Amino acid sequence: MKGVLYGIGIGPGDPELLTLKAINAIKKSDVIVVPHAQNGYETAFEIVKDYLSDKILLKSHFYMKDNDDKRREHRLKVADDICKFLDEGKTVGFITLGDTVIYSTYMYVHKIIKDRGFKTQIIPGITSFSASAAVAEQVLCEGEDVLHIIPANREENIERFLDLPGNKVIMKSGKNITKVLNILQSKGLSENTKIIERCTMKEQRIFNSIQEFYNLAKDEQAGYFSVVLVKDNSNTMEE
Amino acid sequence: MKGVLYGIGIGPGDPELLTLKAINAIKKSDVIVVPHAQNGYETAFEIVKDYLSDKILLKSHFYMKDNDDKRREHRLKVADDICKFLDEGKTVGFITLGDTVIYSTYMYVHKIIKDRGFKTQIIPGITSFSASAAVAEQVLCEGEDVLHIIPANREENIERFLDLPGNKVIMKSGKNITKVLNILQSKGLSENTKIIERCTMKEQRIFNSIQEFYNLAKDEQAGYFSVVLVKDNSNTMEE
Repeated sequence: MKGVLYGIGIGPGDPELLTLKAINAIKKSDVIVVPHAQNGYETAFEIVKDYLSDKILLKSHFYMKDNDDKRREHRLKVADDICKFLDEGKTVGFITLGDTVIYSTYMYVHKIIKDRGFKTQIIPGITSFSASAAVAEQVLCEGEDVLHIIPANREENIERFLDLPGNKVIMKSGKNITKVLNILQSKGLSENTKIIERCTMKEQRIFNSIQEFYNLAKDEQAGYFSVVLVKDNSNTMEE
Repeated sequence: MKGVLYGIGIGPGDPELLTLKAINAIKKSDVIVVPHAQNGYETAFEIVKDYLSDKILLKSHFYMKDNDDKRREHRLKVADDICKFLDEGKTVGFITLGDTVIYSTYMYVHKIIKDRGFKTQIIPGITSFSASAAVAEQVLCEGEDVLHIIPANREENIERFLDLPGNKVIMKSGKNITKVLNILQSKGLSENTKIIERCTMKEQRIFNSIQEFYNLAKDEQAGYFSVVLVKDNSNTMEE
């Protein structure tokens, strides 16, 4: 009997945001793969550490700066390592920050392993933009609102989609946060913008406008692990 | 001491998709408000029934067919009922299917009660489109993909946003599912479309193309509680 691979979304940071399904899948797993990308390892480890005592841990390194070939090679290596365990009949849980189906590195590995005929299951997690909206007590969409999820890794994306009607979530700003906020400000959206940094983590900070961010976020790490929520004024908000 | 209001996302149907935070908030609550809209009551009740033994239950009726005035009036009535409990120092948990910040009726009530000065907390839940993508083992967005969440309650929204680059999620199709699928088919998107009906519930069905939906979904209730996922071919998919 071959083992099963679980792709497990573990939410944005607060261990209480784990679902029962995620916890049960971790408990069922013999091997836990923890992805190691941009401080992500420590964060992910912190969320699930209570459930790892009897597990084989596999650290998986993904580097954002790698070129495509290097990344592909690395994913294949991780997939091979996982398949060895599956072949032995071991259950493997691959944990991923936030939601499994939203910008996760896991899905690349998932496709490789699924294509090789192994049994897989994806367990969704609380995505960082949901949790960010929750802590900021701001609705993401209501009634007839459209919602656009825009990754900041392509600057032209931000320019292009910002003018559409609908609320926007800007993800993966990372070091480009200032650039992103400058674009938003140039469009007069300072007051419509909230920046949620390290949401649901101990160091969480919420900035209720771009001005507030510039006034308060003085440190170098400002904007790191941030979600930017942009409210479209033209949306039909019922009173 | 006034009580606290929790807005609690309980996920799309599978009780295992409850977060620990949602469960803990329900346990802390003296009063649980269960919204009653379009079979939603039974679904919501089923998810949380294990935690309700010692609770005061408040059924809240929201009717989609109500006009705006009627809805506003009803929300005020629900808010008034909740505030009475909060004034007595009782903790109130308002449960909502899926995610609290995505198309939930709760947020209207939340705003009213927050504006009256009560303490509130929002707990995010697994949204139906995340869970749908998970059960269909399809990524929602990866790399540089943009993702558009489009409610089907305005037909022109679908026409307008479908031609944008990026993957799409079409929500709230309800009785308009055939209309929605016809538009998608007319744009040659049959093979790019998956329809997930009653995701993570016992009666869940997954249709991997529009043709499959038309071939298999014969019953009248077809498409009810459905999420439509549309994959954009032009997206840069890394191999």
